[in-house]
Amino acid sequence: MVAVIPERVVSNLASNLAGGLDTDIDAAVHLHVEDVLARYLAARRADLPELARTFAAAVDTLSDFALRGGKRIRPTFAWWGWRAAGGEGTGERAGAVLTAVSALELIQTCALVHDDLMDASELRRGHPTVHVRFTDAHRAGGWLGAPERFGMAAAILLGDLALAWADDMFESAPLEPDMRDRARGPWQAMRAEMFAGQYLDVLAQAEGDESEERALGVARLKTAAYTVERPLHMGVAFAGADQHTVDAVRTFGTDIGVAFQLRDDVLGVYGDTVVTGKPAGDDLREGKRTLLVALGLAYAERDGRHADAQMLRGALGDPGLTARTIEAVRELLVEVGAVAELERRIDALTTSAMAALDNAGLGEPGVTRLADLAVAATRRDR
Amino acid sequence: MVAVIPERVVSNLASNLAGGLDTDIDAAVHLHVEDVLARYLAARRADLPELARTFAAAVDTLSDFALRGGKRIRPTFAWWGWRAAGGEGTGERAGAVLTAVSALELIQTCALVHDDLMDASELRRGHPTVHVRFTDAHRAGGWLGAPERFGMAAAILLGDLALAWADDMFESAPLEPDMRDRARGPWQAMRAEMFAGQYLDVLAQAEGDESEERALGVARLKTAAYTVERPLHMGVAFAGADQHTVDAVRTFGTDIGVAFQLRDDVLGVYGDTVVTGKPAGDDLREGKRTLLVALGLAYAERDGRHADAQMLRGALGDPGLTARTIEAVRELLVEVGAVAELERRIDALTTSAMAALDNAGLGEPGVTRLADLAVAATRRDR
Repeated sequence: MVAVIPERVVSNLASNLAGGLDTDIDAAVHLHVEDVLARYLAARRADLPELARTFAAAVDTLSDFALRGGKRIRPTFAWWGWRAAGGEGTGERAGAVLTAVSALELIQTCALVHDDLMDASELRRGHPTVHVRFTDAHRAGGWLGAPERFGMAAAILLGDLALAWADDMFESAPLEPDMRDRARGPWQAMRAEMFAGQYLDVLAQAEGDESEERALGVARLKTAAYTVERPLHMGVAFAGADQHTVDAVRTFGTDIGVAFQLRDDVLGVYGDTVVTGKPAGDDLREGKRTLLVALGLAYAERDGRHADAQMLRGALGDPGLTARTIEAVRELLVEVGAVAELERRIDALTTSAMAALDNAGLGEPGVTRLADLAVAATRRDR
Repeated sequence: MVAVIPERVVSNLASNLAGGLDTDIDAAVHLHVEDVLARYLAARRADLPELARTFAAAVDTLSDFALRGGKRIRPTFAWWGWRAAGGEGTGERAGAVLTAVSALELIQTCALVHDDLMDASELRRGHPTVHVRFTDAHRAGGWLGAPERFGMAAAILLGDLALAWADDMFESAPLEPDMRDRARGPWQAMRAEMFAGQYLDVLAQAEGDESEERALGVARLKTAAYTVERPLHMGVAFAGADQHTVDAVRTFGTDIGVAFQLRDDVLGVYGDTVVTGKPAGDDLREGKRTLLVALGLAYAERDGRHADAQMLRGALGDPGLTARTIEAVRELLVEVGAVAELERRIDALTTSAMAALDNAGLGEPGVTRLADLAVAATRRDR
């Protein structure tokens, strides 16, 4: 449970005490996000009452988790939404927007810490997950009760804290009041949609739902709304965009967000463990009801490959899934055309997203950066 | 998982659509809190996207939990803080304050849903806890995977949603901006202190901490700050109280809050199941490291009753705790004087709290109501 703050962040912190990073925000959005986050977390930790000393050590584990790795994709989309809708890249208002959009990373910290617990995942970004770290600490200390129960409690409470601090960070960012008021709608909707999407995901796994509709519903809420659409909506709302622009960026965000999830579906089965930081076949083992799986089952049945479909059903949610079965599933999904169909949909969604972006009435350099981000989100390998 | 909204709340809702309850807020704070909460939850549910229909059904279970029972103690302390510091009892500002303080109940909803999960509690307010309700639904549906895992996921996500909606409700209450700005400090501090207190509590149980200091630290953070001190601080801050008044009500709140927890300690061992809605000896079974237990162990050792102290240590956290052992612990804690010492401390804390209240510079009818609340909080049987 020793907290390790990445050296890069520490050196950023040092330079910040002298007045902030000395690069443009545009030039390295994710570094600026990490910098603002590190400072916020350090300030909140310092504000904890003296009585909460042992909790501060637990907060270090949370900060370590939040600051180490991560693509910072949500604040980055929000930032470029702001810029594309005419927001400044430097100055006081830019700094305030940077702080407000960085709060999205604390929502994500809560989501990951709680998601890893719900999925009983042991690794995240190549390191032990938060509940595993506290379970291990309990075991190493030879403490009373079940180590897993202590790990669970710590992960629930630290995820809750991250969620509460996300709101605090959003509400404390030194924005002009009307800017914050405009962005509060998407901020509030986004959190409810994210939890709704996570619940639908868990429910689909439990019910063994094989429908394309449910898989797409999860992708829309859990990924598209939360990861792209609402962050972008917030970004353009800060800048006071009109309804036409808001509608267009939401369409762009929804399409790119769903494409992002479909890419995730493929990586969840075919991804390279070394690159993704997650075990091979993780989505299968967890029984995730992705569009890839829904189409794979539907196509296998359509082709009369009932035994193969049963094999895939058996693999979903099997904690003892073998490398041989993972390989068989991989072959099946390619052979029945499910992978090819996913690639077609990713392409089609990217095309429709780009059309919406072209019509959004946004300006440079934001538009080009949003287009680049969209391509990166759908053609990544991790 | 059928949601049952209490009839009283439904009828309140109906009267509210015609413009609010027709009684003074002062005359029935808890009914007004439930009314505002019911309307807020219904509005947020209605705002969920069409895709999230199945999530809306889960939200009904959460609303049911939030609206059924509960003493509404936190909003009530906050309301009387506002009134005692000169805030109006009727009109627009009063309505806005009522909404903002009712958000405290959604924090409490999150805390209870997550706490019951962490403690593996099956009953709350005489009904199955949220994780148990979803575990049962999974089992009844014959769904895939472990029922307990599904129950856990649903409880985590619904608790998270309650926490997010608490912030939304606080930030959306139609307060004048400077009123909200003044109350945001205690609002933000309160949540961090609550999670810190819960973590210290879990850690003390794991470490088998027997110190009086740790037990009091948990009582200060988890109960006093969260339940009395900060709600009151918010209430007087809304009204623009000066520093002297803020300091005095915080002292009052801390003392009464600790006394409230000490009363809880006694009820956790001696409480009547029918009245408390919790199983007998629940605190012992969960291994809670309360001041009552800390003093019981210290006094037993002081009196040379080492075997009895060991018996008490063995009872703490024992899931198979018998009625006979509970009875033996009850007798021990009385015999060594731990119960009498707790009663003495409750009296002393109540006395010092009342002195602080007298010096706070507050007015009627608030002061008398705060004094009544203080007495009720420390002399209750549930």
